[in-house]
Amino acid sequence: MRKVGVVGIGHTKFGNLSDYELVDIMAYASLNAMEDAGIDGGIDQVMVGNMGAGMLNHQTGIESALVSTLNLEPAMAELVSNGPASGSSAFKMGYMAIVSGMADVVLVTAGEQMRRITGWEATDFVATLSHPEVEYPYGLTLPAFAAMFTRAYMAKYGLTERQLSLISVKDHLNAEKNPFAHVQLPVTMEGIADSSHASVVNSYVSEPLRLYHMCPVSDGAASVVMCAMDGAARFKKKPVRIAGIGSATDTHCVHNRKDPLDLKAVRLAAETAYKMAGIGPKDISFAELHDAFVILELCLAEEVGFFKKGKAIEAIEKGETEVSGRLPINPSGGLKAKGHPVGATGISQIYELVKQLRGEAEKGRQVKNPKYGLAVNFGGFGNNVVATILAKE
Amino acid sequence: MRKVGVVGIGHTKFGNLSDYELVDIMAYASLNAMEDAGIDGGIDQVMVGNMGAGMLNHQTGIESALVSTLNLEPAMAELVSNGPASGSSAFKMGYMAIVSGMADVVLVTAGEQMRRITGWEATDFVATLSHPEVEYPYGLTLPAFAAMFTRAYMAKYGLTERQLSLISVKDHLNAEKNPFAHVQLPVTMEGIADSSHASVVNSYVSEPLRLYHMCPVSDGAASVVMCAMDGAARFKKKPVRIAGIGSATDTHCVHNRKDPLDLKAVRLAAETAYKMAGIGPKDISFAELHDAFVILELCLAEEVGFFKKGKAIEAIEKGETEVSGRLPINPSGGLKAKGHPVGATGISQIYELVKQLRGEAEKGRQVKNPKYGLAVNFGGFGNNVVATILAKE
Repeated sequence: MRKVGVVGIGHTKFGNLSDYELVDIMAYASLNAMEDAGIDGGIDQVMVGNMGAGMLNHQTGIESALVSTLNLEPAMAELVSNGPASGSSAFKMGYMAIVSGMADVVLVTAGEQMRRITGWEATDFVATLSHPEVEYPYGLTLPAFAAMFTRAYMAKYGLTERQLSLISVKDHLNAEKNPFAHVQLPVTMEGIADSSHASVVNSYVSEPLRLYHMCPVSDGAASVVMCAMDGAARFKKKPVRIAGIGSATDTHCVHNRKDPLDLKAVRLAAETAYKMAGIGPKDISFAELHDAFVILELCLAEEVGFFKKGKAIEAIEKGETEVSGRLPINPSGGLKAKGHPVGATGISQIYELVKQLRGEAEKGRQVKNPKYGLAVNFGGFGNNVVATILAKE
Repeated sequence: MRKVGVVGIGHTKFGNLSDYELVDIMAYASLNAMEDAGIDGGIDQVMVGNMGAGMLNHQTGIESALVSTLNLEPAMAELVSNGPASGSSAFKMGYMAIVSGMADVVLVTAGEQMRRITGWEATDFVATLSHPEVEYPYGLTLPAFAAMFTRAYMAKYGLTERQLSLISVKDHLNAEKNPFAHVQLPVTMEGIADSSHASVVNSYVSEPLRLYHMCPVSDGAASVVMCAMDGAARFKKKPVRIAGIGSATDTHCVHNRKDPLDLKAVRLAAETAYKMAGIGPKDISFAELHDAFVILELCLAEEVGFFKKGKAIEAIEKGETEVSGRLPINPSGGLKAKGHPVGATGISQIYELVKQLRGEAEKGRQVKNPKYGLAVNFGGFGNNVVATILAKE
């Protein structure tokens, strides 16, 4: 089977990019990735990862628009969507395009623009992922799902709100050193929990989750150039190898799961990726885990086999998941602080894996000698998950 | 390279399905396809083709919702979008999934629900494919593009409105025998052209195009089960082989093309598909061509090499493209009369190719001993085109 690598990466600043057009934001990230790879053309296929340009930008066909903006015609172009895991799904499709021989060089660019709409509209937009008859009408937005999930986890494993905040503090520390991060603002345990001085910031969004327990609403894009490893020598940068990709679905409705705390799709996606890579959780040097809500960083770390169920928080308390720790998690700042332009997140995670594996991360957040990086991108409330393992050659 | 075949097909009635949920419509087509293949599970990957569930249904993540409705968890699932060519793009991705070894059995289901909104909203919805700054604000909807294109073709090749209507008459005749067709109503030359008795029906929508020169606004879904040929024996039906797939983009904006009558992406997509199949236009027994506007049936037939430029109409006048003719085109009734639920169309075309190649089409519209069928699915106004060739084994 054909081996595939990443030879170029690009990223926009995450944050409020309302002044720009979505396709231009994506073009910016794409040109960055192509420049990094040392090319200005020769792309066979463009895969766009996006969740909601139709709803958010009143625009469709952005895959064709992007090709044209980049003068890449007649490159093939498709848009791949899978909710907040759209980016990783587009990456998976780019991988398949190369392995199948349909393409030799693929540009995968993922982006989302969520700041032109109001906060409520953004919550509504993401909630279109829920079931339109038995979830959505009952107010089951994503923060509501996450809050209930957190409550159940707290009840079962004794997790406290203080412990939850430890994850936020770590993520914000990492994001402060990441120039692309949306929120480059250190937060303190006291700042997150103290409700006395700024109620907007500190009040509960969905109890027990406060504002700093969840990701901001962001615009942004990220991009990678992928190629067959046997043709990688002609690019400027040494390739980072795609070692494993796995994806899996779970019941669309959370209430249909036997145990709502059991994130089966995460486990299955990771297992498939490990199997393909021929490695196990112990071989992973660092991970980017989909912490749209900080509880997910903790639970995903358990589901992918880093820690036993209920035990991740001990490692977090000990600092093991900090950049300088035994197993750094979200050295980018994670969705929590780097930001979460939904469709873009999967490729932003891959961007971070490549950057770290190349040893190019900024001072203070470069993981020491990483060999394997794992990214987990979480769609719906765990109903469609993609896990990707990249390896240093 | 792994060979891939289609072993199951399913289709809903095209028309007004507003009473049903989109995912249920897609589930219906999927269950049809699975029943046709003789399976009730064992799907590794679900590919959903859809253009606008976010805008039209205020729902996202329909790929995960479909998996759950069909009890196919933990099958992988992605949504693939490429405007009105979304169905074929999903099919292409399904093909890549199998050739790459990521999946052995793939369900590709494409659907769209466009009748819950008003006619104007439907026109607006499709026009989101145009450029948001230099096309859309100037009223360049898809009927306007098609009308200008038709005018230019008429000026260059002397095509008349009467000749254009010949295509409509043929398509409606075929659709009358297709139980899934939206408009099962024979139309006459006089009926199309005579403006005296029913102005709504006969007036120009966008001069020189009248109502019966363009497709209706439809709901519907279609589905196929694909598998690796080496594993095809365990299914109920004999596989139809995927011989060639090609896709290509052209400039996003029509005004950036040197010659707007030159549908380059159609030509390139077809050439790639022919090359992969190891055949040429002369080997094609029949074709499903994307006639959202009847002018496109004519121009696509020329671009894929069936006729010289400006000459297709002679063959149409002689009846060569009728079901009983030398080279039947749109035996299904085409988008014109079968209907065009945009995202569904590509898979509906594939459905028709398989049905014809199996010899299972209804009486009066079965092509005689077909060996190769070609489908062309047209995205934007020709800015992203997918061509697929299926072969009888």
